[in-house]
Amino acid sequence: MEKQPIPTSLDASALDQIFRTARTHNVLAGTVTDEQLRAIYDLMKFGPTSANCSPARMLFLRSHEAKERLRPALSENNLQKTMAAPVTAIIGYDLEFYEKLPYLFPHNQDAINWFKGKPPVIESTAFRNSSLQGAYFIIAARALGLDCGPMSGFDNSKVDAEFFPDGKIKSNFLCNLGVGDTSKLFPRSPRLSFEQACTIL
Amino acid sequence: MEKQPIPTSLDASALDQIFRTARTHNVLAGTVTDEQLRAIYDLMKFGPTSANCSPARMLFLRSHEAKERLRPALSENNLQKTMAAPVTAIIGYDLEFYEKLPYLFPHNQDAINWFKGKPPVIESTAFRNSSLQGAYFIIAARALGLDCGPMSGFDNSKVDAEFFPDGKIKSNFLCNLGVGDTSKLFPRSPRLSFEQACTIL
Repeated sequence: MEKQPIPTSLDASALDQIFRTARTHNVLAGTVTDEQLRAIYDLMKFGPTSANCSPARMLFLRSHEAKERLRPALSENNLQKTMAAPVTAIIGYDLEFYEKLPYLFPHNQDAINWFKGKPPVIESTAFRNSSLQGAYFIIAARALGLDCGPMSGFDNSKVDAEFFPDGKIKSNFLCNLGVGDTSKLFPRSPRLSFEQACTIL
Repeated sequence: MEKQPIPTSLDASALDQIFRTARTHNVLAGTVTDEQLRAIYDLMKFGPTSANCSPARMLFLRSHEAKERLRPALSENNLQKTMAAPVTAIIGYDLEFYEKLPYLFPHNQDAINWFKGKPPVIESTAFRNSSLQGAYFIIAARALGLDCGPMSGFDNSKVDAEFFPDGKIKSNFLCNLGVGDTSKLFPRSPRLSFEQACTIL
């Protein structure tokens, strides 16, 4: 019988840090450096996307001016915490992502034609895969010791008009970044049981 | 000045395992136990979703019979590797996820009304958040020492008709699971640079 490599798990503290004790933070402080933003990207970029299409585009808003441009798009619940966060990432998706496939998917130079001129496939592929990449972003930030506050409560059309006026990039969701204040957390909400969410066939 | 907790990073081997050296595998072998599937779910369930809506529903296909039901929906490129994988997960999303919000989002019993009767909001929320959860699934499996082969190359309508005939759940993507054969990998495809994907404002 062929020898199988033995799967090994990360240790308990690492699983805690990226999943089990990690929380969505409303109060984020500290400093997020350019180096940290690059380190997050240099992890998340390796997460898998279909045909390596990598449609996510990120704007990191850190300056006062950039945050003020975001202000009118934020829902009331998300306003103060977002203005106060060290960095707010706009996770968007490039509707012309397929133009980069000859570089990103070099072993099939025809891959661009799976998408070009097919808006429904472009939209669903960009939305699905930029969401995957948004999740990789969250996990990468946590893995590097930062905390996240992701949110969908904002006006996408206002964000798009302000930050992506040429219409080629659409916003998916926002994510505040920084060092979370655990004293400001409320208790974690329940999750569905395995039986509610999963079936083995 | 208030004391800030010092962010700490996972060690290099953990970052490698979940991102940097992890790869999408075409050849997966070994055994994936019920216990491992539950362990993956017990990590991924903690990943954040908007209003904790948790719309992902997973079918884990392991039996010969279940795999045969999937066969007609698979693209030619994905057929053999999927039939051979120890488990294939169908990551789907529940279009009635909002019915569980009184339980999942207990501090706002009105949250169900943000969605009920609003199909476009239901669809985009379910698709975005089940994609996030699909990414958490991939990272959780890797964190536990398993390998993944996620794919979008299949006929969603055939999968939905076969596995979700009541129309309440839609398939998002598939993910093979097992122990990858690294000798069968081709070189990793390039990624976009930070400058191509990100801007700091």
